[in-house]
Order: sequence, then C-alpha cells, then structure tokens
Amino acid sequence: MKVLVAGANGQIGKQLVDILKQGGEHTPVAMVRKQEQADAFSEKGIETVLADLEAPAADLEKAVIGHDAVVFAAGSGGSTGSDKTLLIDLDGAGKLIEAAEKQGVQRFIMVSALQAHHRENWNENLLPYYAAKHYADKELERSGLDYTIIRPGGLLNKPGTGKVSAAENLERGSIPREDVAKVIAASLTEKHTYKRSFDLVSGEISIEEAVRSI
Amino acid sequence: MKVLVAGANGQIGKQLVDILKQGGEHTPVAMVRKQEQADAFSEKGIETVLADLEAPAADLEKAVIGHDAVVFAAGSGGSTGSDKTLLIDLDGAGKLIEAAEKQGVQRFIMVSALQAHHRENWNENLLPYYAAKHYADKELERSGLDYTIIRPGGLLNKPGTGKVSAAENLERGSIPREDVAKVIAASLTEKHTYKRSFDLVSGEISIEEAVRSI
Repeated sequence: MKVLVAGANGQIGKQLVDILKQGGEHTPVAMVRKQEQADAFSEKGIETVLADLEAPAADLEKAVIGHDAVVFAAGSGGSTGSDKTLLIDLDGAGKLIEAAEKQGVQRFIMVSALQAHHRENWNENLLPYYAAKHYADKELERSGLDYTIIRPGGLLNKPGTGKVSAAENLERGSIPREDVAKVIAASLTEKHTYKRSFDLVSGEISIEEAVRSI
Repeated sequence: MKVLVAGANGQIGKQLVDILKQGGEHTPVAMVRKQEQADAFSEKGIETVLADLEAPAADLEKAVIGHDAVVFAAGSGGSTGSDKTLLIDLDGAGKLIEAAEKQGVQRFIMVSALQAHHRENWNENLLPYYAAKHYADKELERSGLDYTIIRPGGLLNKPGTGKVSAAENLERGSIPREDVAKVIAASLTEKHTYKRSFDLVSGEISIEEAVRSI
C-alpha cells in the first residue's frame, strides 16, 4: 500500500514513516506543511506531499490522490490553543476524510485518544481536545471508508515493548509512541481492524496478535 | 408544543421565549444555567429548567424530558475562547441532540450560521466557530430527529421587519435577531421545514410565506 501519513513530522508520524519504510511492505508518503520538513524526509529516501490541514478541502483532495491508505497522525499539539484544535484536529480530519471518500482512498486509520467515544471518561484537563477527537471519530465512523480508529492512552517517549492491550474499552493506561506507530503499521492490511475502533495501552499481547484478534 | 429553549437567556433566545409566550400556541420553557436567570423568567410567568450545556449528558436528558421540541439558540459567545466553542457550540449541541433522541423529543431546531455547510464560504474571522457549527449541524442532520437548521446571516439588534429571504444558499447578508426568533417560532409546526436546512437573511417575503415555501 502507498500510505499517506498526515502529521508525518509529529512524534508518532515520524516513527510510523520509518517503520513502514523499513518494513518494505508498504510505501510511506510523508504529508508535511513545510518545504524544509519535506527535504528532511527526502534525504532519508522517503516520498513527500506538501499539504496543510488548514488548507482548502480541494488541496487535501489533491494530496490523497494516488494513495491506497491515509493515516491521520496529526494534531495541533499542546502549544496552540483550541482555535487550532477546531481547525486541525476536528476540521482537518473532517476534510481529509471527505478527501479520501471523494478520491476513493478506501483505507483510513485515525489516531484518536483513549475513551474519546465515552464522554464521561474524557480527560478532565483536555476536554476541548477530547470533544474535537470525539466528533472527528464520529465523522470517520459514518463515512463509507474502511476505517480503523486507534485510541491510545497516555503517550510516552520510551522505546516500545511490542506488547499491548487493545479492546473497545480499557482502563486508563499509557503506551510508548513507538508501539502506537507499530500498531498502525500492523493494522494497515489486517482486515480484522477494518471498521473497528479500539482503546490501546501497553499490555501483555504481541502487536501482531492484538490486531489479529481485535 | 412545549418548547425547551436552550440559550433562553441569549439575545435570540429571550425574544423567542417572549414571542412563543405571546403567541399562545406553544409553551416556552427557558433552559438557563443560573437560578437568578430562572427567577427573571419566572417573574414573567415563563417556565424554566436549570441545566448547563457543559453538564454531563445525563443532566441534559433530564432537561428535555416532557418537551415536544428543543431549540438550540445557545452559543458560547464572543467573549470566551475556542475552548468554550468546542464544549458548548459543538459538544453542548451534540449532547442535546442525543438527549432529544434518547427521550423521544422528535422536533429540534438549531440556530446555525449562514453557509456553515459550505466551508469555502465560512467567515474568515470566525473559522473556529464555523467549524464547530458545521459539525454540530452534521450531527443533527444525521440524527433521526425532525430537525430544522436555520442559518442566519449577520445578526442585528434592530427591530425585525417581518420580511426575510430563506433558501439553501444565499449571499452574505444580515437579519435582525427578532426576525430569526420569529422564523423559529413560525417553523415549529411547519412541516415544510422538517428535515430541512436553510440560510436566512432579511428580504422581501413574509416569514409565514417563507417557512411555508422553503
């Protein structure tokens, strides 16, 4: 699969692109906003597409053309306000979902957040962010796409363990970003994950088994 | 109809409650956050429900019980940030839509914003607000409710003229809040407005005719 990674310059996105590149099975394409970001990927032999999630929907349609899958690993991040949460985490995702639908890119993986589907379990300190993720996920679930919504717990920068717990509802927990990236990579062609949404934290089961048995 | 007005203390909501009360055909119930707001409505002989759009979904379910219609005329307003836009304009609306569905309150009128359905026409200065309205409207359109989404142009505090233009797509324009409130009131039992969404600005046609011919 040729996989467009939105948010390729982010902490999960960078690792995902590397994992896909090293795996050899898929071709990652880094979607980034700035030329210097594109240059850094190009130097590593990775294809790039310049596109901004705040750009008009037509630009994002152009960006997805020719891909077999889209991964939304983007996020406005903690350093910007809720303006950007609305325009990137919610509407950026919404535009990319519409772009995939219009251009027939059937496979779409969303990086969401643990329990985003259950309002009563949203992280008290991140309510606006969770609201944006909740509605972006709903858009994707109601699309005609072969979606997978991965809802990781607290993201860590530790090396991955390769062992996870994945289920529709999990208690709060954490997980290294590297393991989230590996779960995305392992899910891409794993049909069990199509039209499915699941929480994800560190656990006892190998990633391959986790995505096969979800 | 017994009509729950969310945002009854707002500029459109207050006029809507008065219009419904004076019309005599429907019974308005003012949904407000604070006891002193409730007291002010009670003094005018208007029923009230204390409920906060930021409260848990279960509280909003209780609030809608016993009503025949819900009007979402609420908004976080220009004095708060996009945090509140996400939690009130988007998720407050989402919770109230779910509450109406769960409690079988079949009629739901949403006050949205001109061209909220067309991203390319969003007001440049209000993009985050428009994003929130866009997705709240989509939630409502995909609900099983008899919805009407009214998308007024620039809101004025002038007295209403009683003459409007209503259509799926209109050029930018403005409209007195009083006329928006009158259009809501006239739409409540007008079947032509069920499962419909329309832009609304001041125009040449009487409100009664406009909602009949939409």
